[in-house]
This record gives sequence, C-alpha cells and structure tokens, in this order.
Amino acid sequence: MPDLWQEAMDHAVVLARKSGEIVREALQNEMKVMCKSSSVDLVTKTDQKVEQLIIASVKDKFPTHSFIGEESVAAGQPCILSDNPTWIVDPVDGTTNFVHGYPFIAISIGFAADKQLEFGVVYSCLEDKMYTARKGKGAFCNGQPLQVSDQTDINQSIIATEFGSNRDPEVVDKIFSSMRKVLCLPIHGMRGAGTAATNMCLVAAGSAEAYYEIGIHCWDIAAGAVIVSEAGGVLMDVGGGPLDMMSRRVVAANNKTIAQRLIKEIEAYPATRDDAPIDSKE
Amino acid sequence: MPDLWQEAMDHAVVLARKSGEIVREALQNEMKVMCKSSSVDLVTKTDQKVEQLIIASVKDKFPTHSFIGEESVAAGQPCILSDNPTWIVDPVDGTTNFVHGYPFIAISIGFAADKQLEFGVVYSCLEDKMYTARKGKGAFCNGQPLQVSDQTDINQSIIATEFGSNRDPEVVDKIFSSMRKVLCLPIHGMRGAGTAATNMCLVAAGSAEAYYEIGIHCWDIAAGAVIVSEAGGVLMDVGGGPLDMMSRRVVAANNKTIAQRLIKEIEAYPATRDDAPIDSKE
Repeated sequence: MPDLWQEAMDHAVVLARKSGEIVREALQNEMKVMCKSSSVDLVTKTDQKVEQLIIASVKDKFPTHSFIGEESVAAGQPCILSDNPTWIVDPVDGTTNFVHGYPFIAISIGFAADKQLEFGVVYSCLEDKMYTARKGKGAFCNGQPLQVSDQTDINQSIIATEFGSNRDPEVVDKIFSSMRKVLCLPIHGMRGAGTAATNMCLVAAGSAEAYYEIGIHCWDIAAGAVIVSEAGGVLMDVGGGPLDMMSRRVVAANNKTIAQRLIKEIEAYPATRDDAPIDSKE
Repeated sequence: MPDLWQEAMDHAVVLARKSGEIVREALQNEMKVMCKSSSVDLVTKTDQKVEQLIIASVKDKFPTHSFIGEESVAAGQPCILSDNPTWIVDPVDGTTNFVHGYPFIAISIGFAADKQLEFGVVYSCLEDKMYTARKGKGAFCNGQPLQVSDQTDINQSIIATEFGSNRDPEVVDKIFSSMRKVLCLPIHGMRGAGTAATNMCLVAAGSAEAYYEIGIHCWDIAAGAVIVSEAGGVLMDVGGGPLDMMSRRVVAANNKTIAQRLIKEIEAYPATRDDAPIDSKE
C-alpha cells in the first residue's frame, strides 16, 4: 500500500524549518507584543505570520485538507476534528519563551485523517532539532531514531510539567498540589521546558520519563503524541483513560507503569474542551 | 596595570571545553551511577573524572592556588574561602540532568582572589555555549556580549528557580509556598533549567529576569555570579542583604527593582553554610 500521507509529511518538515527561520529572525529584532487573555498568554505578530504561512502553503498544495491552528481558533475559527485530512498546528509553541528569548521554542505540526493521527513534526528551532514521526515508522530527531527511557521506577524518573498560564487560585491550588505529590514520591526531578511540544519530544528522546499537563490544547500535543508513541511511549488522559486530544489533558510517558503510577498523584480536573461550542467558552 | 588573572581565565576556558567533551562522550555511553545522600543527589564517575582533571591541571599550572570543588568537599576536603587565589568548581552542574540526558549540563569554574570573585566560566556543554566574564570587562557567550533584560515590571518577567533535591517536608513547604507567591504576582512564567549555573547565565543573557534558590553551593554560583554581574545584573541574598557566597542562598536579577520585588515573596530560611565545620554538617 502506498503511503498516502508521506508527501504531506515531507511538506510539513519544509514548513516547520521555514517557520523556524522566521522565528529565529524575529528574535533578533525587537518584538512588539499584544495581549490575549492575560499577560501570560502572549501572542506576537510572528505567531500569526507563521500560521498564515503554513495555512497558505497547505491550502495551495492540499486544497481539500482542513486546518486547526492556534491563531485561527483564537480568531473565531471552529476547532472541530472531522474525518477530513486535518493539519493541527501550533505556529509557535512556547510563546512566553519566545517573548523572553528562553531557549525552547517549537513549531508543532500534527496531522490526522479519519480522526487518527498520522504524523507529527516538531521543530525546536533554537536548538535546531527536527523531531519527526510517521505512524508505524518510528520517531526521529534530525534523522536519528528516538527511543523512550526504559525506566519503570518512578523514583528514578524526571517528570515534566508546567505551571501553565491560568492564575485562577483554585486551578493554581490543584497544579501545585499535584506537583508536590509527584515531587515527593520522590522523583529525581521535575522540569518544564515551557512548551508542551518540546516536553513531549524530551519524553520521546528519553530525557524525561513522563510529561503531564491540564490546560494544553490539541495543537500543542497532536504532533508530540505521534512522536512519543512512535518512540515507544504511551499516551493517556490524566484520569487514566485513553487520550482525548480535545480534552485539554494529557499524560505522555515512556511506559504504562510510569504513566499509571504518575496518574495516581495528579489531581485531575476538567477543562473547557477545545471542541466545545464557541459560546460556551470564556 | 597588567591583568593578573587573564592567564588563569584563559586556562579555565580550555579546561571547561575539555570537560564538556568528556561529559558529551560519557552521555553517549551507558553511565554507572552511584548514590550520594539521596536518589536525587546523584553523582557519576564523570563528575569525579572531570574534577580530577581540573584539579590536576590547575595544580600543575598554578601550584600555589587553592581549590574548592563539589567532589573534593564531598570527599571531606574543607570548603573555606581564604585570601589565596582560589578556583571554585562544579565539574558537572546539573547531575540529575546528566543522568537523564536532559539538555542543560554545565561546567562551572569561578575564581576568587582576596575573597573577591575575579572571573567566571560556565560551559553549557550540550548547547555548546561558553559563557565567560572577567571582572570589569563584561560578560560574553561564545564571544558575543551579554546584557541582562531591561524589564523593571515583575509582572512581565520570567523567574527561574528549582524544586531542589531536598525532600524534607518542611523545606518542600517553603519552596512551594515561595514559588506560588512568585507565580501569582503574577509573572509571565517560572522556569528551571536544572542547573544553577545555567539559570544564572540565562539571567545574564536576558532570557529570564531573575533566578533565586536556597540550598545551592558556592561552586554552583561562583562563576555565574561574575557573569550576571558583568552582564549588568545584581546579586543579593534572598533575605535582601548582600550575597554571601557561602550561605547557600542566592538571588541573581537583571536589576534591583526586580530583585527587591522578588525578595518580598520568598520565604527565606537558613541552610547549613558551605563553610560550616564539617562535624556540624549532616
């Protein structure tokens, strides 16, 4: 059977690299920043420029494909995953890092058909690391195969997570409570790169045993999910069920043992779904 | 006046680069790890190998100089800063990162004479970034001048800190309490690279506005202190006084405004001093 989506994946890699160049160039210049929902959730002109570049190029080359992108959804476009081939894109994952020049910034391009993820491309553009994975064909970083850590003891693990951008005291309570329980299992250490896509790639590369977060969006994790999975890892919901990409909750781990142990310590709470009707969102 | 210490600094750069090569080579191989005080506080053969290399080379080239190093102190050597020219070295800052291949690992070489820091060299060896600073002559990364962020509004800041390796519940309480207060100022984001030296270099580079931590050692911060200071930043104690390098407490910030605002939120507590008599240490 010919690989239906290889051409799309090759194109995603080209787009990710081109987008990374734009980000690196923008970082050289002073950036004008405008506020979104809060001062933490920044969006820059570069975000929009990169997303427009990717949309235009996908529309030109694959005119029947659908598109879900962070900036498009912010601008009122629907966030619904249909059976149609769909590009799920975060033009700049790690916008806060970007604004500050903190060294983890990723372009994240996932792709699904019939609601199944087919490939993922994450370009960590300041490190110049191109992570790629095609369903059933393994995961790679700059062409080198990736393999998750073989650790099964959570006490010997690094766990990645983020403080997130929500400063609602009740949410912050839960985030800190989970972090503390995980840290005091104990584990070796807790890290957060400031981008979900990079955190997932670090799990795929074996640098962290697991990553969990509540509050991320489908465009943050679609590409990373394929990369983790193809590197031998597992994806779950923080409540222990299967990953629901629209639920804004994710656990990505090297194996089920670590994932299930981790989940026991996470105070799971629901987040407004990515595919909720727009008038139900704040 | 000739620069007394330039030759020593040039040698520190050579040693840092050589040490970084050893670390990178070790990461390619499987590492045998042995436990120190807890599973979090790992030390590898590479740590010791690198420290021995640096000690031997310094003794050969500068036989009258003194030496304070993480592994030497762990092996029972005194940790006293005298007026004698003294190399203050962490052979591998970020040992937990090293064991896991997490991408921030630094060789940190500070140097003091008459108890004054004269130069600092931090080599972030997986990023291949060589940070250098000589008192009064500026700070550089791979030869490019460094400048701290000009931000004076803490609400627009990234603050770096670490969860640390202490899992004593009372200490963890204070760490989490400070983190939460800082996060909810609010700030843009909180990050931790997993190495004090790298966190300080990120402040020097303007990627984070400030870094604070209690529990670090003089060899973690000696080099970084010169780099931050020469990049235009400030160093303080978490209690607001001047930095005491042996107190195991540090605030490194882009300016006094950010440092003083940050200090209000930190629950300061004393740590056993680096220069405490050995029998008073646990």
